[in-house]
Amino acid sequence: VVASHVETTAILGGGSWGTALAIHLARLGRSSRLWFRDPQQARRTERSRINTKYLPQWTIPEEVELLSDLGKALRGATAAVVVVPSRSLWDVARDIRENGPAHDILWISATKGIVGEEGRRPSEILREALGLDQVAVLAGPSLSEEVLRGLPTAVVAASETEAPAVRTQNLFHGPRFRVYTASDVIGVELGVSLKNVLAIAAGLAQELGLGHNGYGALLTRGLAEICRLGVKLGARRETFLGLAGLGDLVTTCGSPLSRNHQVGRRLARGEALEDILDALGCVAEGVPTVSAALALAGRAGVEMPITAKVYEILFRGKDPRQALEELMLRPPGDEDGSSRSGW
Amino acid sequence: VVASHVETTAILGGGSWGTALAIHLARLGRSSRLWFRDPQQARRTERSRINTKYLPQWTIPEEVELLSDLGKALRGATAAVVVVPSRSLWDVARDIRENGPAHDILWISATKGIVGEEGRRPSEILREALGLDQVAVLAGPSLSEEVLRGLPTAVVAASETEAPAVRTQNLFHGPRFRVYTASDVIGVELGVSLKNVLAIAAGLAQELGLGHNGYGALLTRGLAEICRLGVKLGARRETFLGLAGLGDLVTTCGSPLSRNHQVGRRLARGEALEDILDALGCVAEGVPTVSAALALAGRAGVEMPITAKVYEILFRGKDPRQALEELMLRPPGDEDGSSRSGW
Repeated sequence: VVASHVETTAILGGGSWGTALAIHLARLGRSSRLWFRDPQQARRTERSRINTKYLPQWTIPEEVELLSDLGKALRGATAAVVVVPSRSLWDVARDIRENGPAHDILWISATKGIVGEEGRRPSEILREALGLDQVAVLAGPSLSEEVLRGLPTAVVAASETEAPAVRTQNLFHGPRFRVYTASDVIGVELGVSLKNVLAIAAGLAQELGLGHNGYGALLTRGLAEICRLGVKLGARRETFLGLAGLGDLVTTCGSPLSRNHQVGRRLARGEALEDILDALGCVAEGVPTVSAALALAGRAGVEMPITAKVYEILFRGKDPRQALEELMLRPPGDEDGSSRSGW
Repeated sequence: VVASHVETTAILGGGSWGTALAIHLARLGRSSRLWFRDPQQARRTERSRINTKYLPQWTIPEEVELLSDLGKALRGATAAVVVVPSRSLWDVARDIRENGPAHDILWISATKGIVGEEGRRPSEILREALGLDQVAVLAGPSLSEEVLRGLPTAVVAASETEAPAVRTQNLFHGPRFRVYTASDVIGVELGVSLKNVLAIAAGLAQELGLGHNGYGALLTRGLAEICRLGVKLGARRETFLGLAGLGDLVTTCGSPLSRNHQVGRRLARGEALEDILDALGCVAEGVPTVSAALALAGRAGVEMPITAKVYEILFRGKDPRQALEELMLRPPGDEDGSSRSGW
């Protein structure tokens, strides 16, 4: 890997992934600024050097400057990673715009989720709000805790032209954090966002005792419906076979730590969605993504039977076990038939 | 689903999957003949109505005729499922041929594995040995125990023209055992066979504490190399996104019951391959498939870095942890680049 020219990096969003990325950079010998939207949280973290809310086990090294002043975070920055919850993205983008021109910065989105009825992807929102030509996307199977424990991780850096992805790769790549480049921005963002819906389904299925056969079928038919939608929206099919598709799907659905997985497990035990989200105390991106995905699918004319069932369970009080039965009873067709849906 | 015309079905091979398929058919109200190559095992099973070696928990219903006379098993049969270990396939095919003409029978292969240096697929061997136009393939994520427990399962029936796959679907499809049709026979057989190599790797990785991120990356890069080889050999890329690719991969690699997974775990603990195979007392198809896969890959000019490492660990005494480190230290490239391998 070619040595990166030294970037001045702002990481916008002090959740678990933003904090982990800042610590990761520090370990590579690269300083960064970690911006918290909430000034109180910035001060608290500054005092203890620990993100008590999201990563209580890890001390944040001195190479990470902690702040809540967006202007200061972006002053002189050559690279900025946006890693806020998708529901805050429009607000944060507006705040960024008010802080001056964004054109000389390499913008990288590490936010997952599909936003609103229009089903906008995070990089689309940033491009539009900030008037940018390109926004790179950093995504893939990367549980924060494991990255910090130094366990091997492989992700993708995607951008339409090569340069932003390669710069992102140079910035983050390390011996145990492999960054592959990719060009299918749409596929990468849809893959890592929509898989959160399947993580809810996987949690439900596990709690209901679905078994390994059914789990394999659920992930396969689930990825198939994500892929059908993605291809309609301009993504490449191969992307869903890659780290941002299959890889992130396997990691998230297999990890009991995943918030979305927890949502599914608790729904299956009969808890109410509101109570679950209150108890988690943080964002489960799969929940708002379900509605956005169905809105997109409706406009694109694509059937998403599994996503539709998750929607009914989450928002219409549908019994999870019955929903699963109904999925199983759909008539089978040709496996790749996009007209015959099956699941 | 259209009601099937009544088939007279022979199931050739009384291992766990052959026995499970016979019991499954009985539950659908369909009788069958289950042929054991070993006359002693046939007699023992006939006495107890239990396949004590492979499925000791399940009674075999009266609708299943147990026998070791191949001629009798095939007499008047309209459908025959071959489900013997891949290493016995040539021998069994020769025995079948000696028992008379095979042309009026719907042949279905449910054997997994790639055979010998030539890397022959089971359906190829049957076609050649029996002089057949077509052999259908029944495959997918289907742990025997779970099928018998009535847990939901989805598999594919593949054949080049539609009719054999549809007949296979009609024969086996049931409310909790969904059979999808497919036409990419090459892809289906390669997917379900080569994934056993990755199941060994997954067992190794689990025992070595790889973590969820690395597990996601391993399955993704592993399926990518299977897909590269498959496409070179005439398979369709989409097949590897389906039940016989991703589905079977997720189920097998995630199940501690899988023999191949056990092989990997025990290798990582430092046990010798011979001792492991002795202790298992049954076939782990991934082991012979590793060499066959590398032979195929060599001839096709495709790099398979993960399969190559599994080969070194199995047959060259390579240290598993070091092999994993070496995989991680390969330079990263473009994610879909078939020329740059990465892993």
